Amino acid sequence: MTETTTARTPRNGVDVPTLFATRDAVKANPEIADFQFRASNTWISGTHNRTTIQGFYGAGQEDSSRTEPFQYDADHPAVLVGTGKGPTPVEFLLHAIAACLTAGLANIAAARGVTLHRVESTVEGDIDLLGILGLSAEVRNGYRQIRVRFVVEGDATPEELAALVEQSRRRSAVYDVLTNGTDVVIDVATA
Amino acid sequence: MTETTTARTPRNGVDVPTLFATRDAVKANPEIADFQFRASNTWISGTHNRTTIQGFYGAGQEDSSRTEPFQYDADHPAVLVGTGKGPTPVEFLLHAIAACLTAGLANIAAARGVTLHRVESTVEGDIDLLGILGLSAEVRNGYRQIRVRFVVEGDATPEELAALVEQSRRRSAVYDVLTNGTDVVIDVATA
Repeated sequence: MTETTTARTPRNGVDVPTLFATRDAVKANPEIADFQFRASNTWISGTHNRTTIQGFYGAGQEDSSRTEPFQYDADHPAVLVGTGKGPTPVEFLLHAIAACLTAGLANIAAARGVTLHRVESTVEGDIDLLGILGLSAEVRNGYRQIRVRFVVEGDATPEELAALVEQSRRRSAVYDVLTNGTDVVIDVATA
Repeated sequence: MTETTTARTPRNGVDVPTLFATRDAVKANPEIADFQFRASNTWISGTHNRTTIQGFYGAGQEDSSRTEPFQYDADHPAVLVGTGKGPTPVEFLLHAIAACLTAGLANIAAARGVTLHRVESTVEGDIDLLGILGLSAEVRNGYRQIRVRFVVEGDATPEELAALVEQSRRRSAVYDVLTNGTDVVIDVATA
């Protein structure tokens, strides 16, 4: 979202009037911007487990719009001694960054009056498993680099289209977490 | 994985002999630990987009074990001016951390000879949307905190079960990325 709008009409599947009305509502009442997202996970067998995502808190109340839960399996592939019943957990990080940048881009384009025709992206993440295998103290556990490559087509100059991606990066929640990190607290109850 | 094993037999659905054989193979030939994971994303409409995950490079070759692609939709809910056709991108980060810690826990338990009966976790992430809405320069875009709560039941003392979670945290690729951040490079081709 941006202050420099040219046309507050629906575009790119984005309800631009509602987008700006929502932003104005938050501006007038900043506490409705406090959100809490949640997931629950159940171990199945080996590296195979399943996450359920449904409720969240936001805009001052529990959300009730999701009548069915979303469920996602994760696993390791055979080469990493798993059963391949889902992607690896680290691959979901690549999904998250692509999805976040793309959603932001569509909103920003709509707010700027730019009609998009195509947005595609590919993401690569390089990881040296010597870290997680405990075989090198010098190698980190996580990705050493993630690269996102966008192809964007729309009714704007190449510079304007590239600027949409840049503004989306500047406002991306996932980009912030992946590049700057965040506090993660873990606790355990045993029975 | 750990050096202090008590029984190298299959357990918890983990093929422990293969797990240690894999680790030994990597030790003898460290370049096979270089992996590259990938995802591709296509914008659909508004904040709705879809990621495909299939191929990856690792153990010295392109993986061919996944005969079908994995596909995941992401979207914003109605309260965030989306159509709710998938979870938000930031919720997939919660899935990723739960899945990574759980997979590691199962491996470590098996390597230590601990039979697990139940592993469940819930994850919460707090986020103030004043950041991504561009309404406060003091508020970050991403989660200010993520909390993971495990319930673990198995044939070991509470201290031993809690130690499994702690060792999984120490070797988790997703925990490393989420807490320490990583380099994310974005480029754009326009047409």
